[in-house]
Amino acid sequence: MINYDSFLSNTGRQLHESAIRKMGTIGIRVPDLVSFAAGFPDPRSFPWQELCEIAAERLSGADPTVLQYGSTRGYKPLLEAIAGVMSARGIRSALDDLIVTTGSQQGLDLVARVLMDPGDAVLVELPTYTGAISAFKNVQAHLVGVRQDADGINLEDLDAVCLRERAAGRRVSLLYLVPNFQNPTGLLIGLDKRRQLLEWAERRNVLIVEDDPYGVIYFDDVTKESETRPIKADDQRGRVIYLSTFSKTLAPGFRMAWIAAPPALTARFELAKQSMDLSSGIFDQHVVHQAIRRGLLDKLAPQLRALYREKRDVMESALRAELGSVLTWPEPKGGFFLWPELPAGVDADALLERAIEERVIFVAGSAFYVDGSGQRRIRLSFSHPAPEKLREGVRRLAAALKPVVAGR
Amino acid sequence: MINYDSFLSNTGRQLHESAIRKMGTIGIRVPDLVSFAAGFPDPRSFPWQELCEIAAERLSGADPTVLQYGSTRGYKPLLEAIAGVMSARGIRSALDDLIVTTGSQQGLDLVARVLMDPGDAVLVELPTYTGAISAFKNVQAHLVGVRQDADGINLEDLDAVCLRERAAGRRVSLLYLVPNFQNPTGLLIGLDKRRQLLEWAERRNVLIVEDDPYGVIYFDDVTKESETRPIKADDQRGRVIYLSTFSKTLAPGFRMAWIAAPPALTARFELAKQSMDLSSGIFDQHVVHQAIRRGLLDKLAPQLRALYREKRDVMESALRAELGSVLTWPEPKGGFFLWPELPAGVDADALLERAIEERVIFVAGSAFYVDGSGQRRIRLSFSHPAPEKLREGVRRLAAALKPVVAGR
Repeated sequence: MINYDSFLSNTGRQLHESAIRKMGTIGIRVPDLVSFAAGFPDPRSFPWQELCEIAAERLSGADPTVLQYGSTRGYKPLLEAIAGVMSARGIRSALDDLIVTTGSQQGLDLVARVLMDPGDAVLVELPTYTGAISAFKNVQAHLVGVRQDADGINLEDLDAVCLRERAAGRRVSLLYLVPNFQNPTGLLIGLDKRRQLLEWAERRNVLIVEDDPYGVIYFDDVTKESETRPIKADDQRGRVIYLSTFSKTLAPGFRMAWIAAPPALTARFELAKQSMDLSSGIFDQHVVHQAIRRGLLDKLAPQLRALYREKRDVMESALRAELGSVLTWPEPKGGFFLWPELPAGVDADALLERAIEERVIFVAGSAFYVDGSGQRRIRLSFSHPAPEKLREGVRRLAAALKPVVAGR
Repeated sequence: MINYDSFLSNTGRQLHESAIRKMGTIGIRVPDLVSFAAGFPDPRSFPWQELCEIAAERLSGADPTVLQYGSTRGYKPLLEAIAGVMSARGIRSALDDLIVTTGSQQGLDLVARVLMDPGDAVLVELPTYTGAISAFKNVQAHLVGVRQDADGINLEDLDAVCLRERAAGRRVSLLYLVPNFQNPTGLLIGLDKRRQLLEWAERRNVLIVEDDPYGVIYFDDVTKESETRPIKADDQRGRVIYLSTFSKTLAPGFRMAWIAAPPALTARFELAKQSMDLSSGIFDQHVVHQAIRRGLLDKLAPQLRALYREKRDVMESALRAELGSVLTWPEPKGGFFLWPELPAGVDADALLERAIEERVIFVAGSAFYVDGSGQRRIRLSFSHPAPEKLREGVRRLAAALKPVVAGR
């Protein structure tokens, strides 16, 4: 047989596997598993009936463009509706700023391909989102981590890391951030710090990639809506590339997301996207547009906040009851995740093996760190399992963890 | 304001614009335009009612996975159904061979990223599909053209070009072909030649990328189904990466296509796709799966063959009546396009400017040539316009062309 290694490109040889996607394969072979691994939305939140009505109306045949090829930039009425969504978040965006993407993952890939050369240093939070790590590593970017405080990225460390990398001869032109309910930590960057980040980006001539999938899902017992104001909302100078998605606020199955960026960059993203998939799903764009136009998205948002706040409560209560003396975690301000620290001497990867035996999975923390650390962290997603499954999963996690702690 | 040029990557600076996509913008600003430019399917062929029923059934909420994140490889029942589609084309494929892509354009991009390094020579037909040119150029591949005869690519030239490029020190490991009703020529590679291409690939240690969007749409007055047998069907040694799509046989709006390749390569495509869009549209995959399962695809195929054969007849008759003494073109064996040659001294780009004034557009031939030639060719797509529009468009083309010919 042919050995295909010699046919691979440099990129093809070095492809980076997502730790989260890898976990998905375990779910298939372990029956009755409870998964705290993937950040899947709760399907009970999907507005099935309304979407069914929209789909049926769109497929009447009255508008032949619904199933035709569409423009690479996106379906214009959807782009206009996105400008409205942005406006509600405090961001003024013209149509020239916007492009529809096939999930925010494509947005990250577009940013990587259009803006990163092999060996460029890209600044990211410690820890950061694994999907960004994969997309950036797959263009051979050199990812450099910056410490976080309770109110987000540490500005002194940020500047020090930037200057150190530049002194080492690397190009440093991008900082990737998830300011709202960061994946995996659940943290929120403070409003003051957001303004300081803009000033810093200007001073150091860096662009900020602001990834905002969770901003709408704040927990209103600990977070005010005003605290989620995107950095992009105060971006007077064109320093911010803003990414967001309908995957968390409507449903992921449509793969509908967008980028808002300075027009010169959006034009480049459009050119790159032409050769990547011509356009995102046209029918899906029509459906999402109708969901916005009919007020469905606005109606869902408070329901989602209540739903995920309740699920956070269920998981936190269960964790406190079962493992309160063993685990600590930062208070999540919104989003889908808890981010517990394991006791000294307990390794997350070793715990995962025991957990799989107990039929519960999570993501081991090292997947989120670009500096090789994170062995004592685990990411627990409470978004998908039903409440009784959340409790059962925590019991199983305790069954996996307690003997290790006792045996230290 | 910021000059963003210094932020672009090498790829970002060199992005290649699709000539066909560019034409799309003309359609927006010229009212009552007849477009022979894009290869859009006829929306009258879309099975609106059946798709409406399928969508409504899938959105009942009974299956929560319909709107959830899905596997990168693809929705398993769809992959199984695709194996059935492949079988009908004479290709045995295991699930390990297959991956769903967001249009065949993503398939081309996956091939480019996983298998091409900057500077690699990639062999293509003269002329060839512009979407492949864009995807391959955007990873800085060096595209080298090979002459075509009436029965497809010229094997002597192919071998000479391969050896010449290798002698020049370039890696040559990929040959890109559209064997069935090539875009833009409408030609068909003969069955003997297909077998010889496999032998040649083995002898020269090259992989063949076989792009087959149009195979189902043969014109049965001039082509037998057996003549469309994919090269992949006789690929015993794992030399062929096969791409196909539902865009032409169901509808493009779902962006549903697939790759069938040796499992070691498909696994690499899967890893690359993880960081490109996580997965293709999940809901769309469910809809297309149902369309296959319910026999819709099989029912449509003969209707599409009849429809496009008739539209070919309309355009050819109109061209013969209006421009029979001026234009010649190879007989298309299937697909969506005619590929006329202009009289000596008439330049396609200059003609296009006159044609826009007459409110008709096409794609100038040079877009399909990687060697800078093609100035005397135009691609006319007959797939989308209604018959009366085909006739009107040809009248306008004649109005643009005749004065030029008379004035030579």
